[in-house]
Amino acid sequence: MTVFKTHLKISFFLSLTYFWPGFVEAQILKQSCINEACSAKRVTISNPPVNLWDANVIAAFNEFLVSLQDQNETKVVVFDSDNSDFWASTLDFNLFTKLGIPGRNGTTLIDTYFANLDLLLSTPVIFIGEINGRAWGAGDEHLLRMDMRFAGPEAQFGAPEAAVGVIHVGGLQQLVKLIGSGRAAEYMLAAAQVSASEAARVGWVNSVHPTGNALRKHVNDIAARIALFPIEALQATKASIAEQAPPRAAFENDLARFNQLAALPQIAANLGTILQVSKNESKSFEENLNNNIVKRLYQEPN
Amino acid sequence: MTVFKTHLKISFFLSLTYFWPGFVEAQILKQSCINEACSAKRVTISNPPVNLWDANVIAAFNEFLVSLQDQNETKVVVFDSDNSDFWASTLDFNLFTKLGIPGRNGTTLIDTYFANLDLLLSTPVIFIGEINGRAWGAGDEHLLRMDMRFAGPEAQFGAPEAAVGVIHVGGLQQLVKLIGSGRAAEYMLAAAQVSASEAARVGWVNSVHPTGNALRKHVNDIAARIALFPIEALQATKASIAEQAPPRAAFENDLARFNQLAALPQIAANLGTILQVSKNESKSFEENLNNNIVKRLYQEPN
Amino acid sequence: MTVFKTHLKISFFLSLTYFWPGFVEAQILKQSCINEACSAKRVTISNPPVNLWDANVIAAFNEFLVSLQDQNETKVVVFDSDNSDFWASTLDFNLFTKLGIPGRNGTTLIDTYFANLDLLLSTPVIFIGEINGRAWGAGDEHLLRMDMRFAGPEAQFGAPEAAVGVIHVGGLQQLVKLIGSGRAAEYMLAAAQVSASEAARVGWVNSVHPTGNALRKHVNDIAARIALFPIEALQATKASIAEQAPPRAAFENDLARFNQLAALPQIAANLGTILQVSKNESKSFEENLNNNIVKRLYQEPN
Repeated sequence: MTVFKTHLKISFFLSLTYFWPGFVEAQILKQSCINEACSAKRVTISNPPVNLWDANVIAAFNEFLVSLQDQNETKVVVFDSDNSDFWASTLDFNLFTKLGIPGRNGTTLIDTYFANLDLLLSTPVIFIGEINGRAWGAGDEHLLRMDMRFAGPEAQFGAPEAAVGVIHVGGLQQLVKLIGSGRAAEYMLAAAQVSASEAARVGWVNSVHPTGNALRKHVNDIAARIALFPIEALQATKASIAEQAPPRAAFENDLARFNQLAALPQIAANLGTILQVSKNESKSFEENLNNNIVKRLYQEPN
Repeated sequence: MTVFKTHLKISFFLSLTYFWPGFVEAQILKQSCINEACSAKRVTISNPPVNLWDANVIAAFNEFLVSLQDQNETKVVVFDSDNSDFWASTLDFNLFTKLGIPGRNGTTLIDTYFANLDLLLSTPVIFIGEINGRAWGAGDEHLLRMDMRFAGPEAQFGAPEAAVGVIHVGGLQQLVKLIGSGRAAEYMLAAAQVSASEAARVGWVNSVHPTGNALRKHVNDIAARIALFPIEALQATKASIAEQAPPRAAFENDLARFNQLAALPQIAANLGTILQVSKNESKSFEENLNNNIVKRLYQEPN
Repeated sequence: MTVFKTHLKISFFLSLTYFWPGFVEAQILKQSCINEACSAKRVTISNPPVNLWDANVIAAFNEFLVSLQDQNETKVVVFDSDNSDFWASTLDFNLFTKLGIPGRNGTTLIDTYFANLDLLLSTPVIFIGEINGRAWGAGDEHLLRMDMRFAGPEAQFGAPEAAVGVIHVGGLQQLVKLIGSGRAAEYMLAAAQVSASEAARVGWVNSVHPTGNALRKHVNDIAARIALFPIEALQATKASIAEQAPPRAAFENDLARFNQLAALPQIAANLGTILQVSKNESKSFEENLNNNIVKRLYQEPN
């Protein structure tokens, strides 16, 4: 497992006003079985109130992905959420603050975050995203590095990064591959919130399903069918497709771009402002995250 | 013409219960002219009952593709089928058995099979697939290496390889280029049977047409129009597009993956089972080939 | 700015029968502001009667693109047209004649033409095409190298190059990236005229809008929103996406192909014939340019 060395520590102060949910990793990712052999698993992200991609989610994700190395029992993993409004929200912006996360090493957490994105591409297990709520920022980056994605009617996708002043590192280049440069540019540059039907039309997700139940059935059927097949064939297919993934150098270039941007004073200030006004996980703010960031940073009187 | 050296000989025995159609290559590919100059040709695959991609088809295809080298008379070739149910089915699995094909050298035939796939990309003639029946496995691999594909309402596309335990070598990486990694992963990993309308929606084919006649007219019009133009411009356009094809190394990697997989005992056994239950070309089995393979290998009591 | 050295001078004579519009560059590109800060600009192409991509347009485009280097005021530029029938037509074919353009150096102009295509990809400004008329040849090449494209109901796209006997250098490989090799081959090889709705369906444009006003509002909203964001983030996003653009070598290969083709006697003759019958900018001929070229060169008695 390659660990990225990020040397990013944004120098501003911030009053941490939100409740810290503590170290309850054991419950962050809830595992269940899709088929009898449990070779197809369902992993449900549970980090109320908005499935913020915080230290606990990062650590739990890493623990789970590491557990999938060097084993042949698990063939397929579906990631869903137990929150009807959010598949997952952004990375906890406190990771980029000087105070950081109490009791945690922020640099290590960010390295683990990027290592997780890496593991999604390289782990010889088939990863499926099942989304019927919002997937912003970090959530979307993880989805874009899974093998496939299916949406329900309430799914929304988006990256607020351009509005904040950074880039969707880890997701942007995958999105270009999936939907082409023109549409990726539109959604990324405008920090757009993209509906499930539009995401399916352009190829951001494989398909959209009319209800949450229809989505669940479709995903379970596909996961269970794939899990019937020889693991060697699944691994070879994933490896073959990976040959056309954006090269590692592109990801590293994006990471360098991200770090350069996040170190700019104005952009560090933007992050701080968003943390304050959103309280980092207020549901009303996060429901229209991208639009609210635009409104707060650029359109409201200071 | 590069010939791939495959050293694959699956070691199991099999009773060859099906009728061997003999060496009737002359009738396998029926040629006709689309325009007066015959610079646009139609080639109709005819190998009843399911257009199995067997030794005769491989040899006839190679003879035809070789005839197109170093000539300037033929600008466009449309490949269709005289079988309303099948554009073409899979490769004759007997090629991978120890007995092989009576009177033929299996290794040479497999080399020729892959050489044909190569020739579709490199021959300076425009190849168009016109599909209004099933295109499974080998059939789909050939289509994916043509310059464009048009479908009628009865077209279906699919690769049973993952269910058998191998990969769609020669087609998989082209499919990733055409429809993106997410959808290619879904269809390949689940050994899906994909309808004409879904194939058009995602880009597997250029477009779908409401009837067989409408399909025929559309393809004839396009082929005849292209054939009007200077051959040098057609060749230059094909060469330019070919610069973005998956690199040859990717194809060779996939071929190595295929050979590794096909040598595994369980997967060799799967091939043998399918040969026995399908009688290699029973129409009822091949009509729902992928689903029947899944049913027979994984869901029926042994 | 890299300047391409083209050594192309087609050797035929031609009576220049059309009115030469003169050196009125100042009015060729009309600039206006989309937002208050004018960080989002609108540039309207105005070269009646068909927005022929002639010496004046080439020079004005170059002057404008050069003005965007090394500055941070302009973040987004939208290119539209004041001609309801044409976004832009082809390159002035007189550039390829021996007489050339009176008072201008044809070779320099062609070099500038290709330099402009290059600048669209490399200039750290976001370029948006707003199209509600025809975009043929040169017009389409410029659009395909912008960051995104939006269409109104009257938009049409097409490249007549294959019918003439050359290739859509500068546009072809971008189109393959955007819509896949199969559809790009179809449209380029058949010199097709593609409607706005089909262009949106396949990804040639980002989306199609029901009226010119709806198109205008959509583009203004996106441009103004993007222009709110830190310029560093916009530049980084564009740079990240550019990593997946066709490599420069592919463009140079296409340019070499183009020059080889244009030097062939038959193809030089085709250019001459088209110049004569179209009077280079007759509206009735240019409205169905590709189809009229096909009709005139191949289907009418000489």
